[in-house]
Amino acid sequence: MENVRCDGRRYDELRKVTITRDFTKYAEGSVLIEIGDTKVICTASVDDKVPPFRKGTGEGWVTAEYDMLPRSTASRNTRDRNNLKISGRSNEIQRLIGRSLRSVVDFKTLGERTIIIDCDVIQADGGTRTAAITGGFVALMDACSYLVNANIIPEIPIRDFVAAVSVGYVDDRELLDLCYYEDSRATVDMNVVMTSNGQLIEVQATGEESPFDRKVLEKLLDLAEKGINELVAIQKQVLLSKD
Amino acid sequence: MENVRCDGRRYDELRKVTITRDFTKYAEGSVLIEIGDTKVICTASVDDKVPPFRKGTGEGWVTAEYDMLPRSTASRNTRDRNNLKISGRSNEIQRLIGRSLRSVVDFKTLGERTIIIDCDVIQADGGTRTAAITGGFVALMDACSYLVNANIIPEIPIRDFVAAVSVGYVDDRELLDLCYYEDSRATVDMNVVMTSNGQLIEVQATGEESPFDRKVLEKLLDLAEKGINELVAIQKQVLLSKD
Amino acid sequence: MENVRCDGRRYDELRKVTITRDFTKYAEGSVLIEIGDTKVICTASVDDKVPPFRKGTGEGWVTAEYDMLPRSTASRNTRDRNNLKISGRSNEIQRLIGRSLRSVVDFKTLGERTIIIDCDVIQADGGTRTAAITGGFVALMDACSYLVNANIIPEIPIRDFVAAVSVGYVDDRELLDLCYYEDSRATVDMNVVMTSNGQLIEVQATGEESPFDRKVLEKLLDLAEKGINELVAIQKQVLLSKD
Amino acid sequence: MENVRCDGRRYDELRKVTITRDFTKYAEGSVLIEIGDTKVICTASVDDKVPPFRKGTGEGWVTAEYDMLPRSTASRNTRDRNNLKISGRSNEIQRLIGRSLRSVVDFKTLGERTIIIDCDVIQADGGTRTAAITGGFVALMDACSYLVNANIIPEIPIRDFVAAVSVGYVDDRELLDLCYYEDSRATVDMNVVMTSNGQLIEVQATGEESPFDRKVLEKLLDLAEKGINELVAIQKQVLLSKD
Amino acid sequence: MENVRCDGRRYDELRKVTITRDFTKYAEGSVLIEIGDTKVICTASVDDKVPPFRKGTGEGWVTAEYDMLPRSTASRNTRDRNNLKISGRSNEIQRLIGRSLRSVVDFKTLGERTIIIDCDVIQADGGTRTAAITGGFVALMDACSYLVNANIIPEIPIRDFVAAVSVGYVDDRELLDLCYYEDSRATVDMNVVMTSNGQLIEVQATGEESPFDRKVLEKLLDLAEKGINELVAIQKQVLLSKD
Amino acid sequence: MENVRCDGRRYDELRKVTITRDFTKYAEGSVLIEIGDTKVICTASVDDKVPPFRKGTGEGWVTAEYDMLPRSTASRNTRDRNNLKISGRSNEIQRLIGRSLRSVVDFKTLGERTIIIDCDVIQADGGTRTAAITGGFVALMDACSYLVNANIIPEIPIRDFVAAVSVGYVDDRELLDLCYYEDSRATVDMNVVMTSNGQLIEVQATGEESPFDRKVLEKLLDLAEKGINELVAIQKQVLLSKD
Repeated sequence: MENVRCDGRRYDELRKVTITRDFTKYAEGSVLIEIGDTKVICTASVDDKVPPFRKGTGEGWVTAEYDMLPRSTASRNTRDRNNLKISGRSNEIQRLIGRSLRSVVDFKTLGERTIIIDCDVIQADGGTRTAAITGGFVALMDACSYLVNANIIPEIPIRDFVAAVSVGYVDDRELLDLCYYEDSRATVDMNVVMTSNGQLIEVQATGEESPFDRKVLEKLLDLAEKGINELVAIQKQVLLSKD
Repeated sequence: MENVRCDGRRYDELRKVTITRDFTKYAEGSVLIEIGDTKVICTASVDDKVPPFRKGTGEGWVTAEYDMLPRSTASRNTRDRNNLKISGRSNEIQRLIGRSLRSVVDFKTLGERTIIIDCDVIQADGGTRTAAITGGFVALMDACSYLVNANIIPEIPIRDFVAAVSVGYVDDRELLDLCYYEDSRATVDMNVVMTSNGQLIEVQATGEESPFDRKVLEKLLDLAEKGINELVAIQKQVLLSKD
Repeated sequence: MENVRCDGRRYDELRKVTITRDFTKYAEGSVLIEIGDTKVICTASVDDKVPPFRKGTGEGWVTAEYDMLPRSTASRNTRDRNNLKISGRSNEIQRLIGRSLRSVVDFKTLGERTIIIDCDVIQADGGTRTAAITGGFVALMDACSYLVNANIIPEIPIRDFVAAVSVGYVDDRELLDLCYYEDSRATVDMNVVMTSNGQLIEVQATGEESPFDRKVLEKLLDLAEKGINELVAIQKQVLLSKD
Repeated sequence: MENVRCDGRRYDELRKVTITRDFTKYAEGSVLIEIGDTKVICTASVDDKVPPFRKGTGEGWVTAEYDMLPRSTASRNTRDRNNLKISGRSNEIQRLIGRSLRSVVDFKTLGERTIIIDCDVIQADGGTRTAAITGGFVALMDACSYLVNANIIPEIPIRDFVAAVSVGYVDDRELLDLCYYEDSRATVDMNVVMTSNGQLIEVQATGEESPFDRKVLEKLLDLAEKGINELVAIQKQVLLSKD
Repeated sequence: MENVRCDGRRYDELRKVTITRDFTKYAEGSVLIEIGDTKVICTASVDDKVPPFRKGTGEGWVTAEYDMLPRSTASRNTRDRNNLKISGRSNEIQRLIGRSLRSVVDFKTLGERTIIIDCDVIQADGGTRTAAITGGFVALMDACSYLVNANIIPEIPIRDFVAAVSVGYVDDRELLDLCYYEDSRATVDMNVVMTSNGQLIEVQATGEESPFDRKVLEKLLDLAEKGINELVAIQKQVLLSKD
Repeated sequence: MENVRCDGRRYDELRKVTITRDFTKYAEGSVLIEIGDTKVICTASVDDKVPPFRKGTGEGWVTAEYDMLPRSTASRNTRDRNNLKISGRSNEIQRLIGRSLRSVVDFKTLGERTIIIDCDVIQADGGTRTAAITGGFVALMDACSYLVNANIIPEIPIRDFVAAVSVGYVDDRELLDLCYYEDSRATVDMNVVMTSNGQLIEVQATGEESPFDRKVLEKLLDLAEKGINELVAIQKQVLLSKD
C-alpha cells in the first residue's frame, strides 16, 4: 500500500519530537515541546494556595490552563479576553490536561499546595492538546524536583510517566499522530492518554460526521500505545539529561 | 457474587426509563426523560437561521445547550448567569450532545435551518449527559416529524437512532448506568454514544484518580452496547406510539 | 354581556390551579405550580450563610431567583448566561418575589440563615411572576417545616399566607388572572400580592401604551382580592394534605 | 397634630422644585431637576436608529437609562461597570422611566427614530426615580421641540404631560414626596406616575417589611395626585419660559 | 501674527477656570471644575480599606475613577456598563489621575486608608483629563482637611500642589489649553502634570498621525509650565477662601 | 564613577538585542525580539476588514494587542480571560503600540485592510512595551512585504523606521534600557518612541512617587535618542538579511 501521509511518514510513525527544558527562566518548570510543527510552551508554577475543597486536608492539587496565541493558526483567532469568556474548546482541553496529570500524582506527598500547568500554543499543526499533556508532564516533573531540591517535599510525588497522542481514521487507514491536514480529513478522531506501562488514563474517540466500528477503536488504541511508549522514552531521556 | 448496587439492580441492568413526549406545548419537539431519579427536559426548537459557516450551503445544523436547575442536585448550584459565564462542565456536555446528534443527521435534507436541542436537568442522579442525548434524540425526531408534516422538508433527515449510557468500574466490578452514588465511587467513568446497530459515535473514558487496564475498557464497551440496545428499543417504542 | 375570554372563563374566574409538593427530591421545599398552561418549578433551599448586611444580627434572609427555560415560550429565548448577564425583566421579577415573601417572615425566628426560592418557568402562558410568588410561598413553608422538624428552629417563622395574581383591563373589561393572549391585549396590566386577610404587600399597575382611570384601579383591586382569597384557600388545602 | 417631617414641611407639601433647562450644551434636551437635595441630570438624545422590533414600522421609540454617580449617596457606591453588569435596581428604575414616558408619546408622529433619556443622579436624597421621570419629561419635550424646529417632524408628538412623585406611610401618617430619611423609615413606599389630568400611568406600592391596608393605598393616591398636579404646573411654567 | 484660536484667546492663554467647592453634600471633598465648556465633577471619598499590597503597612493609598456622562459629548456614548467593561480610554485616564495625585501624598501621615477621587465629566470640550487632575487635587485637599478637622490625622498629608494642562501643536503653532476643536486638529497632543514649583510629575506627548521635532516638545513644555503656574494660583485662591 | 548597573553595562548601553524573523509559520509577519531577558513574540496578521470609521474611505488601519503569558513574570499572573476583562495595563500598552506604529503608515497605499500586531510576552525583564514596538515594527514591515510580493499593494506603505526604548533615573543617574530590577528602583520612568531620524512619536515620562526636574527629562531624551538609533540600525540589518 502506498504511503498516505502528507509528510511521507509511515502510518504508525510519530512526527519529530523535541522537548526543551528551562525554556523560560521564572517558572519552577518550563518546557517547550515541539511535535512536528506543533509548538507548545508548558510551564509549571507552584502556588501555596489550594482550591476550597482541599483546604485543611493536607493534600495538594494540580490544575491546567490552555490557550493559543492568536496567530498560532492559519487564520487569526480572537483572544478569549476580548470575548469576555474562555472558549468552550479551551475549557474542555484544559480540563482534560488537568485530569490526566492528576491521575499519577500522590497528593499527600505533594502537600497542601497547587501546581498550575500553563499550556500556551505558539504554533498549531494538530495534536496541541496531547502535546500539552506530554510536555506538561515534563514541566510538572521539574516543578516537583524544584520542591524536592528546596527541601519543601521529601520526594517526587509522581507515581508514573504520562504521555498522550492523537490517532485517527483517515482515508480508510488508522494513523498515528495526525497533523492538522490529516486531522481535518479524519472520520474518526481519538485522543489517548496513557502511563509508561500501558495503563489507560483517558480515551476520547469521536466519529466526525458518522459512526464507526469498534474494530477501528481497537486498532487505534494499538497505534496510540505504540506512540505513547515512544513519547515516554523521549520524556525519560530528556529528564535524565540534567538534575 | 453478591449484588453490589445500591438499588438492587444487576450489574448489567438499566434503571427504569420513562420517556414522555409533548411534555411542554410550544417546542417542535418536547420530551421529559426519566432514568431512575435523573430527570431531564429535552426540547427541540426549529430556527430559520444557521451558523455563519453554513450560510448559503443549503445545509442545516443541529446544536445543543445543557443546563441544570440550581436545586437539581443535593447542594444548590449558582446559576451560570450569576457567574457571567457558562460553566466548563456544561460547555463540555453540550458540545458532546450536539456532536453526537449531528453524526446521524442528513443536513442536505434538513435544509438551511438549525434545530436547537435544549437539555435542562430538573433532577440529577448520575448520567444526566447520556440521558440528555437519549432524550434529545427523541425530541429531535419529533421536530423533524413536525417539519415533514408541515411540508417543509420531504422526509425525516435522520439516518439512524442514537442513544447513550454511562458505564463505570466500581469496587472491582463493571457496572451499567451508574447512579450518582455509584458514579462518585467509580475508578473508571465512561460515557458511550452508539447507533442502533452498534456503531460507535463517541467514547469518553476517564480514570478517576488512577489509570486502568485496557481489558476494563473492553468489558465496559460490552456493557454499554447492551444498555444502548435497550435504550434504542425504548426510543422506538415511544416514537411508534403516536404519529 | 357575552363572555370575552379565550377559554370561556367568567371575567372573575381563575384558571385551574394545581400545586404539587415534593416535586423534586433534593430541595428542602419543592413545588410545581400549574395555573392554566403556566407551569413553574419553585424550590426552597436552606443556606447557612446570610448576606453581609445580616451578619452577626441573628436574623435571617429570604431571596429569590427567577428564570425561564429557553423554550417555555412560543419563540425560543436566549439563555441569560449566553448574554453574560441577567435580563432586566428577570431581575425585576425576582426582586418582586423576594420582597413579597420577605414581608411575612419573622427573621429573628428564622435565625441567621438564608432561604433561596428558585422559580424556574417551564411553560409560560401569562402570570408567571404571580404563579412564582404563590408557589414559592408553599415551597418556603415546606422549607420552614423542614427546619422545624429538624429542630433547627422552634416554630414556623411565617406570619401570614401570601399569594399573588395578575389582573388587567382588556377590551373595556376588568379581568382576573390573564392568560398570555389576554395579557398581550390588555391596556392596563396589574400584579397584586396580598396576605390571607386582604392586606396588600405589593401593587404594580402599568398603563400599557396609554394612561388609565383610578376607577379601573379600584375594580382591578377588587378582582385581585377575590382571586387571592381563592389562591390562599388552595395553598392551605395543599399544605394540610401532609405534615 | 404636630409636624412629623424632618424639614418642617406639611405632610402634603412638596420639597422645593427647580428645573433648569439647557443644563449642558450638546444634548437635544438637557435638564437639571432639583427636588430638595435630590439632583438629577436628565438629557434627551435623538438617535436615527430604532430597536429591531420597530424597524420598517415607521414608528419611533423612547427609552431611558438611569445611573447614580458613585458619591451621590452618603456612602460611596461601586460603579456598575466595575461589577461588569448593571445593578438590578438601576435596571428596574430605567425600565419604569422608559415605560412611563412612552405612554404619552405618539410614535407615528415621532417617526422611525429613538429618543434616549439619560438620567444621572448627582445627589440623592430620596425620590430619584420620580424626579428622573418629571425632569426626563421636560428633556423629552425639548428634544421634540428641537425636531419640530429643525423641520424633521411636523408637531410635538406628546399627548399629555407626565410627572411622578413618591409617597409613603411613615409613623402612621401618609406623607408626600419623601426625603431619604423619611423613606428609610416608611412602612409603605409608593411611586405614582400620572398625567396632567389625573390619569394613572404607573402605580408601584410596596409594603416594606409588612403588609398594609387598602385604605392607606387610597390616601396615598390622593396625596400623589395633589403633588403631581403641582409638578405638572411647574413643568408647564418652565417650558413656557422659552421657545 | 493673527490669532489662530476659535475663541479669540492668545496662544498662551488658559480658558476661563472656575472651581466650585462643596458642589455635592455627601463627599468629604466635592468640586465642580469648569475650564471653558469642559465641566467635571470631582469628589473625594475616604474609605477605611486599603488595597491588599498596603495592608498592615500603616500607609494609605489614593486612587481615581474617571467616566463621562453619555451625552457629555456631541454624539452620545454608550455607557461602559452596557459594554460589560471599562473603556480603554477611561482606564488609561484614571490610572494617570491616580498616579499624578499619589506623587505628592505622604502616605505615612495619611495612615492606612484610601481616598478615592471620582471624576465624572458632565460636559466635554477638550482637556477633561487635565481638568480632572486639577479639580481632583482640590477635592483631595478638602478630604484631607476633613480628616484633620475630625482629628483622624494630625496634618494635611500633601507635600505640594498639583495641576495639569493640555498643550498642542496646531497649524504650526504651539497652543496652551486646547478646546476640542483645536485638539482634533493638533498634530502633537501633550498632557503635562506639574507641581507648584515647576517639577514634572507626568509628561505624555503623542504625535498624532506623524512624528514631531524635539524643539516642539521644548516649547510645549514652556507653555505648559506657564499654564500650570496659573492653575495652581487659582487652586490656592479657591482653597484659601474657606477653612 | 563606578558602574551602577546590575549586569555591568555602561549607563548608556543597550542590552543584547536579537530579532528573529519568521519565528512562527502562519503569520504574514512573525518576529521574536529578545532584549536581554525580555522576550516578545510579535506577529503581524493581515485582515480584509477595517474598523467602522474606515469603511468606504479606501484607507487601512493598524492596531495592536498586547498580552503576557501567565508565567512570563517572577510570580504568576491570572489570565485576563479569567477576570472577564482586559487589564488596564495591557490596554494602555496596546493602545501605545498601535498609535506608535500608525504614525509612520501611509494608509492610502495600504488600502482598506487592517494589519493586527499581536505582541505576546513570553519572558519579561523590563521594557516589554518598547520591545513590542521595536519588534512589532519589523513584523509590520514583513507583512507589508508580503502584500507587495503578492501584488496586493504597489509598495511598502511605511514612511520611516520606528523603535522605542525605556530610560529612567535610578540612584541619581540617568540609565538607558532598564531591566526589571533597575525599573523597580527608578524614580523617573520614561518610554520614548522615535523614528530613524530622531523625530519623536511618543514620550511618556512618569515621576514614580515623586516629581522630577525638567533637566532630567532632557538627559533622558538624549539617552533615548542614542538607544533608538542603535535599535533602528539593528532593525535595518535584520530586514536586509532576507527578501
